Amino acid sequence: MEDKTKKALIDIVGEENYTDNLIDLISYSKDASEHRHRPDAAVWPATAEEISAILKLANKDRFPVVPRGAGTSLAGLAVPEKGGVILDLVRMNKIISVSVTDRLAIVQPGVVYADLERALAPHDFFFPPDPASGTVATLGGNVATNAGGIKGAKYGTTKDYVLALQIVLPDGRVMRTGSKCMKSSSGYDLTKLFVGSEGTLGVVTEITLKINPKPSLTSTAMATFEDLEDAGRAVSEIMHSGILPSALEVVDQQTLIAINQNTDLNLPEVEAILIAETDGHTREETQFQLNKVIEIFKKNNASTVKQAATKEEAEALWTARKSAYAVMSRINNSLAVEDLSVPMSKVPNILKALSDLAKKYDLKIPTVGHAGDGNLHPTISYDGTNPDEVKRVEQASAELFEKVIELGGTLTGEHGIGLAKAPFMHLEHDPVAMDVMRSIKKSFDPNNILNPGKMALEG
Amino acid sequence: MEDKTKKALIDIVGEENYTDNLIDLISYSKDASEHRHRPDAAVWPATAEEISAILKLANKDRFPVVPRGAGTSLAGLAVPEKGGVILDLVRMNKIISVSVTDRLAIVQPGVVYADLERALAPHDFFFPPDPASGTVATLGGNVATNAGGIKGAKYGTTKDYVLALQIVLPDGRVMRTGSKCMKSSSGYDLTKLFVGSEGTLGVVTEITLKINPKPSLTSTAMATFEDLEDAGRAVSEIMHSGILPSALEVVDQQTLIAINQNTDLNLPEVEAILIAETDGHTREETQFQLNKVIEIFKKNNASTVKQAATKEEAEALWTARKSAYAVMSRINNSLAVEDLSVPMSKVPNILKALSDLAKKYDLKIPTVGHAGDGNLHPTISYDGTNPDEVKRVEQASAELFEKVIELGGTLTGEHGIGLAKAPFMHLEHDPVAMDVMRSIKKSFDPNNILNPGKMALEG
Repeated sequence: MEDKTKKALIDIVGEENYTDNLIDLISYSKDASEHRHRPDAAVWPATAEEISAILKLANKDRFPVVPRGAGTSLAGLAVPEKGGVILDLVRMNKIISVSVTDRLAIVQPGVVYADLERALAPHDFFFPPDPASGTVATLGGNVATNAGGIKGAKYGTTKDYVLALQIVLPDGRVMRTGSKCMKSSSGYDLTKLFVGSEGTLGVVTEITLKINPKPSLTSTAMATFEDLEDAGRAVSEIMHSGILPSALEVVDQQTLIAINQNTDLNLPEVEAILIAETDGHTREETQFQLNKVIEIFKKNNASTVKQAATKEEAEALWTARKSAYAVMSRINNSLAVEDLSVPMSKVPNILKALSDLAKKYDLKIPTVGHAGDGNLHPTISYDGTNPDEVKRVEQASAELFEKVIELGGTLTGEHGIGLAKAPFMHLEHDPVAMDVMRSIKKSFDPNNILNPGKMALEG
Repeated sequence: MEDKTKKALIDIVGEENYTDNLIDLISYSKDASEHRHRPDAAVWPATAEEISAILKLANKDRFPVVPRGAGTSLAGLAVPEKGGVILDLVRMNKIISVSVTDRLAIVQPGVVYADLERALAPHDFFFPPDPASGTVATLGGNVATNAGGIKGAKYGTTKDYVLALQIVLPDGRVMRTGSKCMKSSSGYDLTKLFVGSEGTLGVVTEITLKINPKPSLTSTAMATFEDLEDAGRAVSEIMHSGILPSALEVVDQQTLIAINQNTDLNLPEVEAILIAETDGHTREETQFQLNKVIEIFKKNNASTVKQAATKEEAEALWTARKSAYAVMSRINNSLAVEDLSVPMSKVPNILKALSDLAKKYDLKIPTVGHAGDGNLHPTISYDGTNPDEVKRVEQASAELFEKVIELGGTLTGEHGIGLAKAPFMHLEHDPVAMDVMRSIKKSFDPNNILNPGKMALEG
């Protein structure tokens, strides 16, 4: 970082909101993925005006700017691959307003998901796309990745809830998109173009979200399957049955074994567990839906089916699913969390492919995920200091992505492309689509200032 | 149309799929709006390849191309304002596949909404965004306008259901966007950029839609209000109450009077009627929700509240709402159907503004609409041969749009901008957003071939 650039940044944000201390730069060199690159500096701006000035400076002095929330990206979205300045949005953490009548929450990008949930709870409203990292992840990150969560099948993803944005464009201009209305067909949908754009097209400084009334009741059941294919068939039949569970999650045998080896939960080491939740306003409704699910579980040879009688029992049924990530991340020094999605009918095929790849590359690939929308998270704990093992993980991942695309799937259901999937973008998107994405990037950000190196946009 | 261009078009689509007969051109000079302009020719292509060849020709010979479905646009989207060639997609009317397990329907753009509904009905699935013109309107039009319908408040609009597209770009290249998965965060969301783009960025040749299981039961109630403000308050309270009706519609006094003058329905001429529908899988659930609605109707001084006991009674309660458009369109020779949307808390304000404008400009402005999502359709029948009346309608509309924007609303909830709202785009979108939209148009379509003159994209 040149002295004059450093001075200019300090002039914009103030000395106390600028750092180039080594310890800070090391912290900012990583997110929750295995990618690493050190930035030259980091700033904590507080307003769209400050961000505008920073981006104008970046275009003048030509340095990369990487917006960052809580750094929970599993795909390297927040890693400053080309150095430059980290724009940490932690100070922009105000919930600007909540209007239940208008079904709107207006927030700054640094608001933590869980803080919004707490603000909405007294009104019995909620913001459905709940990332697993929601206790720390920020809503700016939700927008940048089009985050999903376990309620996706019934309630959709972040995209379905972002109505309007304030954005600082790469050239420093400030723009408002969208409207505060539930419905609008006015002009190109610039809002949705920015959702999932991973901080490459602009910096989001204000987010207007649609919020939902929260169904007051849920019913929960868990089933164990000795045979993975039975579990796959059960998922398909549930999707056929006319109901939409509010959650339908799968935990596979490798995950159960890993949890048992590292906790005293003593889970049944069956080929798969399915956990289903239904929601509604009356007990008759949640039970009617859950009865359909349970019937399908039984018809497909579930070895055990348990329905929770109380809230505490429901929590207990979720234990296997909810402890998976924490256990996997402690098993070894490195972790690859994949995020593939396939059409629902292809869930059995991809589970079979994962088991084949695990054998072929002598790896364990425990898998959990959102069976109800075909979004799975194969998770590989490995020794990142062992070059042979690293290579096998990379080969297995590359082969997995090819298989996913062959099955009509997508590289990422909810984590984004970032650095992790950038080399595979061409598998999913045809050359014309890649060219269009690159043209859009170039027209917004001709000097490639914002979050460069992500999403294979440099072609 | 020059002879060589005509010959080239015939070479592409065949003689039987080309016309420049005056009677055809007059038909193609209009849609369901009051806008008129005659094209030079019309073609009926059957494949993406033919459309690609036509667009390449259009760029070479520089003529406008206007994609068209059933021509039900109320905002002039399908009117060839600058002449050129109408691309009538009526032959591309195949439902390519329906996969219930994958929750997908893949269709060509010329498929009529009602035909898709019929194909989904045996599976007990549906495609929620149901335009009032659904018995004739095509799904390509749904995509072009981001169509809504009466289920928007609970189920969202077309945008929330379009997962993937095949598109012929203005330069003739064919591109696939999106994926067949329920969730994807892979690259920029080009799909959503095209939804609502009114045929100005490319021609959609294949649409992949998410479909929903259809709740098996509904409950319906209608309430009459002597005071419009009571009705407005009832709507607000319903949105607060924790439930989401599957429909919540308003019909105002002017509409009731117009219907009574032109039918023998003999409706109560109160200030407003509200009709609410709730849905679910059990009678307990639909009734629990409807009870909340009825309670709120009563608390807000509804003069009568009727709940339908049978399907036939439910149909009867919908009569006033469903006959409004047909009646209004027969009262006089010209019809302006507005399509404003406001934040829900502003519904009473906009109803008041409409009543003031009607007085000020000596007009009748009957209004119906989707109270549950703030999307209203003031509908003015007028004598288009009376210059003074035309002027008053134009002045009232212009003032209405200003008021809508002042209240935080949008020019169009579900009909699109087209020609009708193009002069008002700058009221809603700031200069930076307008500039960004124009840059996107220019980068996709530098010669301004596709549907020119719409959406104020020419600056």
